[in-house]
Amino acid sequence: METAGIEYTINPLGRKVTENELAELITDFDILVAGTEPVTERVMAQAPKLKLISRVGIGLESVDLLAALRRGIKVCYTPDAPAPAVAEFTIGLMLAVLRQVPLANAQMQRGIWHRHFGRRLAACTVGVIGAGRIGTCVVQHLQGFGPPRIMVNDIARDPTLGSCYPVQWASKDEIYTEADVITLHLPLTSITRSLIRREQLQMMKPDAVVINTSRGGIIHEQDLAAVMRAGHLGGAAIDVFEREPYSGELVGIERCLLTAHMGSMSVDCRTRMEVEATQEAVRFVSGQQLHSPVPPEEYEVQRQSK
Amino acid sequence: METAGIEYTINPLGRKVTENELAELITDFDILVAGTEPVTERVMAQAPKLKLISRVGIGLESVDLLAALRRGIKVCYTPDAPAPAVAEFTIGLMLAVLRQVPLANAQMQRGIWHRHFGRRLAACTVGVIGAGRIGTCVVQHLQGFGPPRIMVNDIARDPTLGSCYPVQWASKDEIYTEADVITLHLPLTSITRSLIRREQLQMMKPDAVVINTSRGGIIHEQDLAAVMRAGHLGGAAIDVFEREPYSGELVGIERCLLTAHMGSMSVDCRTRMEVEATQEAVRFVSGQQLHSPVPPEEYEVQRQSK
Repeated sequence: METAGIEYTINPLGRKVTENELAELITDFDILVAGTEPVTERVMAQAPKLKLISRVGIGLESVDLLAALRRGIKVCYTPDAPAPAVAEFTIGLMLAVLRQVPLANAQMQRGIWHRHFGRRLAACTVGVIGAGRIGTCVVQHLQGFGPPRIMVNDIARDPTLGSCYPVQWASKDEIYTEADVITLHLPLTSITRSLIRREQLQMMKPDAVVINTSRGGIIHEQDLAAVMRAGHLGGAAIDVFEREPYSGELVGIERCLLTAHMGSMSVDCRTRMEVEATQEAVRFVSGQQLHSPVPPEEYEVQRQSK
Repeated sequence: METAGIEYTINPLGRKVTENELAELITDFDILVAGTEPVTERVMAQAPKLKLISRVGIGLESVDLLAALRRGIKVCYTPDAPAPAVAEFTIGLMLAVLRQVPLANAQMQRGIWHRHFGRRLAACTVGVIGAGRIGTCVVQHLQGFGPPRIMVNDIARDPTLGSCYPVQWASKDEIYTEADVITLHLPLTSITRSLIRREQLQMMKPDAVVINTSRGGIIHEQDLAAVMRAGHLGGAAIDVFEREPYSGELVGIERCLLTAHMGSMSVDCRTRMEVEATQEAVRFVSGQQLHSPVPPEEYEVQRQSK
């Protein structure tokens, strides 16, 4: 941005800002390079000069796309950059939960030597809900592990996925009832919000493992905590939460591994996301075409949610 | 064994027995189905009827093979069964350490939300020391992750490994200096004992990650603790220890993940190991040939260590 002669200000609070804080900070800016801060209609109303919102990442539930459209504010994002980091992280969480790695480590730190029994990924049926960039990358990583039996659900059945890898297309209910490991790779929309509640969790095998590295709110957190405290499910790994930073009922459930929205936090992917989002700002200022404007489908999703 | 009419006694102590305890327990038995208990010359001297030692697992450092040979006691093992479980566990430890998963979970349990930066396996150079059954299986699992650049060291260069997978044969010193992730898949012998001491650790990159799921004693534990406390290495994951159960200096080093010799502890592989070791006992009693007698090379290794 300096090379392009763009003046910039870095978030002075050094943490994720609230809606009110963002509304106060944003008044003078033409471009917002945004994390997951709430870029609501109210925020945009305080930003008369705003012309571009460049999201560092793929999720768009934090940006009111229709308000941006009405105000003539363009929105772009970095849909490809996070996928490899999130997919690897997801496999890491699967292996960690299946073999009780964090629990064993915590016990070793307290002087307890307990050799936990676990399950091999190769011997599991893995259910992937959402076969976009990240879900597809998860399927690819699984190929080195046997591969296990892989069931995939998506609203669109991308034929290339099935032709590249041995997967079985399935309904969500089939995945809930048959999979040993269930992993979510969905956007947060009005359709996916609370997709997995008590009813869906109860359909799962008593020793099933649930992984969510996509968005908080898709699994109903209180229901997950309740069924796990009642002894259902073999384990869970939750990286994303309805409200972040998270502190809720899932804390203290030994077989529920919690991480702090770290899926995309690999040095290389984070760098790529930030560079790409910044390059869009530079392109915009110099009158070039944006590489990754948010496509019409995303606006349509928000229109249907209203 | 019941079907074959074999009377058996299960370890009455419900934990790993010591040399003295084993010597007391073993006096009347013809066959010992052994874990990693020390089956020394002194133990064998107390077991005049002993004719077969059937190891549940692959490591033989706990059995005095030469003493068994002198006494006409046959030794068999289950060399193939643990490999898939150990290899998967190893990948799980790599991903957990590279992305700080156990630390993040421990922090979440204490109400601390910290989004740790990590590295992707696909962007690392992985050094595999020991390309036997487990090392080869690790290389296979890595194929789904890009694959990363893989450097392999072994005293014998199995040409099939290089033809199946894109690996680069390298010296140990090349691996120490060039790899971002170093994983050991070696037996414990007089040659491999303390193979990795301060000098070797200091050769590694400041942010290298070391994984040991093979045998304790190969990495010098005090040296590892000392260099890590001094700030060297990005992380480590240690599943095997010189003395188990372990409680030593590595406890309390946040970026050193500790687990309780759990590599082979998947339900399917453990079952296979125990079934195979027991089937050998049944074969022996019914006069059939053993499937997996310990091969001459293993005796030779112990002969050279004397």
